Amino acid sequence: MSGLKLKIVLIGAGNVAWHLGKELQKNDQEIVQVYNRSVEPAIVLSRRLKCDFTTRFDEIYTEADLYILAVKDAAIEKVSKELKLNNKLVVHTSGAINQSCIKHDRIGVFYPLQTFSKEKRLHFKTIPFCIEAAKSEDYNTLMRLATLLSPLVYNINSHQRKVLHVAAVFACNFSNLMYMMADDILQKENIPLDILKPLIKETASKIKNHSPSKVQTGPAVRKDKSTLKTHLDYLEKGKHFDVYQILTETIKAKNNDEL
Amino acid sequence: MSGLKLKIVLIGAGNVAWHLGKELQKNDQEIVQVYNRSVEPAIVLSRRLKCDFTTRFDEIYTEADLYILAVKDAAIEKVSKELKLNNKLVVHTSGAINQSCIKHDRIGVFYPLQTFSKEKRLHFKTIPFCIEAAKSEDYNTLMRLATLLSPLVYNINSHQRKVLHVAAVFACNFSNLMYMMADDILQKENIPLDILKPLIKETASKIKNHSPSKVQTGPAVRKDKSTLKTHLDYLEKGKHFDVYQILTETIKAKNNDEL
Repeated sequence: MSGLKLKIVLIGAGNVAWHLGKELQKNDQEIVQVYNRSVEPAIVLSRRLKCDFTTRFDEIYTEADLYILAVKDAAIEKVSKELKLNNKLVVHTSGAINQSCIKHDRIGVFYPLQTFSKEKRLHFKTIPFCIEAAKSEDYNTLMRLATLLSPLVYNINSHQRKVLHVAAVFACNFSNLMYMMADDILQKENIPLDILKPLIKETASKIKNHSPSKVQTGPAVRKDKSTLKTHLDYLEKGKHFDVYQILTETIKAKNNDEL
Repeated sequence: MSGLKLKIVLIGAGNVAWHLGKELQKNDQEIVQVYNRSVEPAIVLSRRLKCDFTTRFDEIYTEADLYILAVKDAAIEKVSKELKLNNKLVVHTSGAINQSCIKHDRIGVFYPLQTFSKEKRLHFKTIPFCIEAAKSEDYNTLMRLATLLSPLVYNINSHQRKVLHVAAVFACNFSNLMYMMADDILQKENIPLDILKPLIKETASKIKNHSPSKVQTGPAVRKDKSTLKTHLDYLEKGKHFDVYQILTETIKAKNNDEL
């Protein structure tokens, strides 16, 4: 896997470009240029990476090996059309967008499945990379590149990636919503969320080695009618009530194999 | 805090009695007897704790300092009535049951806020204990006892404990349901849940230092209509669709401060 040395242009200067650019450099890849529409982020990131920057498409370096579109989902197609290149590999880093939205001959996806925020350092070795490419030689290049960064590299096509993204909304965005709703409920009684944090940690860590369906606990799975009634009475009408009710019904139905 | 040495009778031989009994012994408390309705679990636990056991209420040792009812929620009141004692402290270990369900003069609650399963070793130092008692001297005894086991000891009355239990259903039972639904979605496409585990871990660990409302991510909070439509189209009608829709609406409303 060693010996790979690509010249890379980063299109975009947001959170993904910020972390990915640095990590690629650390692994001996050459970031030759950062493009960003607005100048400030372009300057900041190019300083961090000690490379060139531009805010103009017609100034983008045309002789790189790889162009990484780390821009907002909605901008991927438009930006790819602005990018005038001759037979170069262009990839995006999005979980939600089809690879075919990139309007070039040699296309692919280089999707790190993690939430990125600038403040928080990430351990790339624990980030799964989902790789896709239209041509097999490009696929091999992306696999080699991803393997430099993490041992968790998956061959995931655009359809699977869409499904993965739906599942990630449940597992991550919605589980965070559950924490938020718990926090709301506790705040009304001046109880700190801290008291639930060990249980939240244990719940998330349980599924490391157990299927979540095997470790479901609580009044819904026990069909403990008395506790369910107490809880719904306490919540009264409103969003919390509705969510409590539909999720309780989902657990019950799942347990009856009706889901 | 040192010097506390109580004679304790454990009523019940389930998961809580199993772990709590051992941990109390480790911290110099004397488990004098285990009561259990059926004989097998009583024998197994009494062997583990090297103490006496009984299956008869009229054989329960009457000179202990503390009686811990570690029985099913629905049995607490009934068992407490069967227990004939003269001015002894009787507590239960439940998150859902009012302390007043214990039909004695000196009553309290000694509630370890964690999921217990026999196979899995627990680190008591990370378990929050919620303490309540009708009399202040009993409250002090329970506080001292809990503090031997964990630094996370909270003064929580029965009303607060009920609210905490509702919140725990959201934060834990429902977040596990979200993992389960993600797993369902992935299984249909033969994608292993493993690929989402780093993201699940990161999501749970983020709230250690951030309020969950500050770290909500995903298409709902971004109001990314195109992705939301793609996801709902994929899910079609059914439980996953309904849950996706109501939780998306909840995130949107929350973001508008309408929750």
